[in-house]
Amino acid sequence: MKNCVLDDLKVKHEVLLTRKNIQMETTNGIYCRYKYPVLTADHAPLIWRYDFNPVTNRFMEERIGVNAVMNSGAIKLNGKYYLMVRVEGMDRKSFFAIAESDSPVDHFRFWDFPVLMPETEVPDTNMYDARLTAHEDGWIYAIFCAERRDPAARPGDLSSAVAFAAIARTKDLKNWERLPDLVTKSQQRNVVLHPEFVDGKYALYTRPQDGFIDAGNGGGIGWALVDDIIHAEVKEEKIINSRFYHTIKEQKNGEGPHPIKTSRGWLHLAHGVRGCAAGLRYVLYLYVTSLEDPTKVIAEPAGYFMAPVGEERVGDVSNVLFANGWIRDEDKVYIYYASCDTRMHVAETDIEHLLDYCFNTPADDFRSIKSVQNIYKLVNKNKAYLASLK
Amino acid sequence: MKNCVLDDLKVKHEVLLTRKNIQMETTNGIYCRYKYPVLTADHAPLIWRYDFNPVTNRFMEERIGVNAVMNSGAIKLNGKYYLMVRVEGMDRKSFFAIAESDSPVDHFRFWDFPVLMPETEVPDTNMYDARLTAHEDGWIYAIFCAERRDPAARPGDLSSAVAFAAIARTKDLKNWERLPDLVTKSQQRNVVLHPEFVDGKYALYTRPQDGFIDAGNGGGIGWALVDDIIHAEVKEEKIINSRFYHTIKEQKNGEGPHPIKTSRGWLHLAHGVRGCAAGLRYVLYLYVTSLEDPTKVIAEPAGYFMAPVGEERVGDVSNVLFANGWIRDEDKVYIYYASCDTRMHVAETDIEHLLDYCFNTPADDFRSIKSVQNIYKLVNKNKAYLASLK
Repeated sequence: MKNCVLDDLKVKHEVLLTRKNIQMETTNGIYCRYKYPVLTADHAPLIWRYDFNPVTNRFMEERIGVNAVMNSGAIKLNGKYYLMVRVEGMDRKSFFAIAESDSPVDHFRFWDFPVLMPETEVPDTNMYDARLTAHEDGWIYAIFCAERRDPAARPGDLSSAVAFAAIARTKDLKNWERLPDLVTKSQQRNVVLHPEFVDGKYALYTRPQDGFIDAGNGGGIGWALVDDIIHAEVKEEKIINSRFYHTIKEQKNGEGPHPIKTSRGWLHLAHGVRGCAAGLRYVLYLYVTSLEDPTKVIAEPAGYFMAPVGEERVGDVSNVLFANGWIRDEDKVYIYYASCDTRMHVAETDIEHLLDYCFNTPADDFRSIKSVQNIYKLVNKNKAYLASLK
Repeated sequence: MKNCVLDDLKVKHEVLLTRKNIQMETTNGIYCRYKYPVLTADHAPLIWRYDFNPVTNRFMEERIGVNAVMNSGAIKLNGKYYLMVRVEGMDRKSFFAIAESDSPVDHFRFWDFPVLMPETEVPDTNMYDARLTAHEDGWIYAIFCAERRDPAARPGDLSSAVAFAAIARTKDLKNWERLPDLVTKSQQRNVVLHPEFVDGKYALYTRPQDGFIDAGNGGGIGWALVDDIIHAEVKEEKIINSRFYHTIKEQKNGEGPHPIKTSRGWLHLAHGVRGCAAGLRYVLYLYVTSLEDPTKVIAEPAGYFMAPVGEERVGDVSNVLFANGWIRDEDKVYIYYASCDTRMHVAETDIEHLLDYCFNTPADDFRSIKSVQNIYKLVNKNKAYLASLK
């Protein structure tokens, strides 16, 4: 076996990092994917992974392996695009790292150091899935999941864990102030900070759940107002987007990134989960809430907006799309989504196309025959339209 | 992003629908696959999916998305080949649609309208996996699964459902008469109508199951005689093809389409299911029952007849082959099978090859050493044969 040569590694890495992405044709008129993932494990800096000194690394072996990059928060600041990436090492521990680019669709490059996120007085075993919100209070918040072993786990059960919503804030994505975890009655994952004050309070999208994995009795995406973000506590929680039998969000759902404010309402990106013979299937869906009353859903197309296709289908955790970051860039929207807990992709669309989709796709009627009737309506409308052309 | 143009969509769609299929080389002398799926979600008519009117669809966005096509009943009528396809919308609801072709292996085209299957007085949430039987009573029957939410589901459980065997009949695949659901003691999926009267009664292949997903104590494929198909009730059920420990049908099995009558017996196509770390694995197997006593198995090769290969392996529910339709066309047999709840394929063989396979493949001996001994027998037979040539 030939030993690795650092200079060769650097050249190959640079080729990957400078690869131009290619916009694919849209398959449905609503968005288009880009051909290449924007980030993969191979994008992780060599300086994180290799001991460059040939005296202490005579075979130029990789010393710290990166397994995957996934579920990334996203934000545009001072003309640059930033992803706050969930990086998973070969040791299965997730942490955050910032990747930066002048372009929304390619050339993302990690900073030399990953994020050294402060802990609270309770150590975190794992940290992941940060949602970034530039709040009108002037701070940039990251709300993410902090995971710790379940103290009530029975002997021999080394898997049971407890999920907390952790809160941190920054001005520059470099220096982070960790605030106390969100106080709630149930476990929480997928907590997202709304970008504006509502009735003078901080507003959170929540996802109350019975257990670490199961949503259980948790009815869906919740909404809670919080007086003080430095001692944030959910006192009352209202479910605003429910799970429902025999839909793409039968088993679980959760808010993605914070919603985008549009002229017609708050535009939301979320994930829905159902079970199948091969495990869970995660897809992405959209809904819109009222500007006057952000707890009121005013549009929700039936079914999914994006599901895994082609190479996105398979990975460490197959059959999963997950998004916790998107960037509104003037009228354009860049959706940063992970496939199968393995890699990060981008899709491009704009506000008008998304609103057109949300307000003109039939809503779910929850029965096979109703779906057929919706197709009948569309076919009959098309037949009348075609006849009118003659 | 460039908007879709309806004329371009039509051209691409027509290219897909008129693509000639290519017979692949057989891998085992028993059947050959065809290269391209005979139906995919992209085959769904544009008139179902797009609002053609640019005034009400200015971006030419897809309005009703089709997610997948799968588990199709099959029949040849008046020289044409028909598939009664399980179509799944992006809303996860399944319904039926008829696709028609002059060829058994390509050029299948959906009718302009899907099947508006009548309901009984109890609404169906989902309908799927129709088995078509042209019965000697003169009707074409479809027996399919009707699924409804489990009224006994505990709060928060939005997944538990109850499966009923629904019965409908037609003369032309267009106008359907829905009959009352099969009355049975347990949940039923994979119920299939035998094409002939037996002792003057209708005969059903059944698959009694304890729960919605689990076969539980249900021992395998059952057989039941029914006096009146208009008020069909299973009074006595006999297991004719059992599940068995450490086989390809350890966890579940079920009849595929109705068996084909041959000179040597009724030839059956079924599916077998086992569990693994990635969920369930579904494969297809064959068995033969006696013409004199259709409840008596007279041949059953060990293991599977077909399992997923190559691109068949991955889809919405990976690791699944499922078939509920085949067509006997003179001596040829076309097997229509779905891979991973995602797309429809076809394989071609004939009665003689299938019988040769069924009667000459060693049966299952249920132990590793027996499988090795069967290989010893074959190697020794071959060595003796080779020696005899010298």
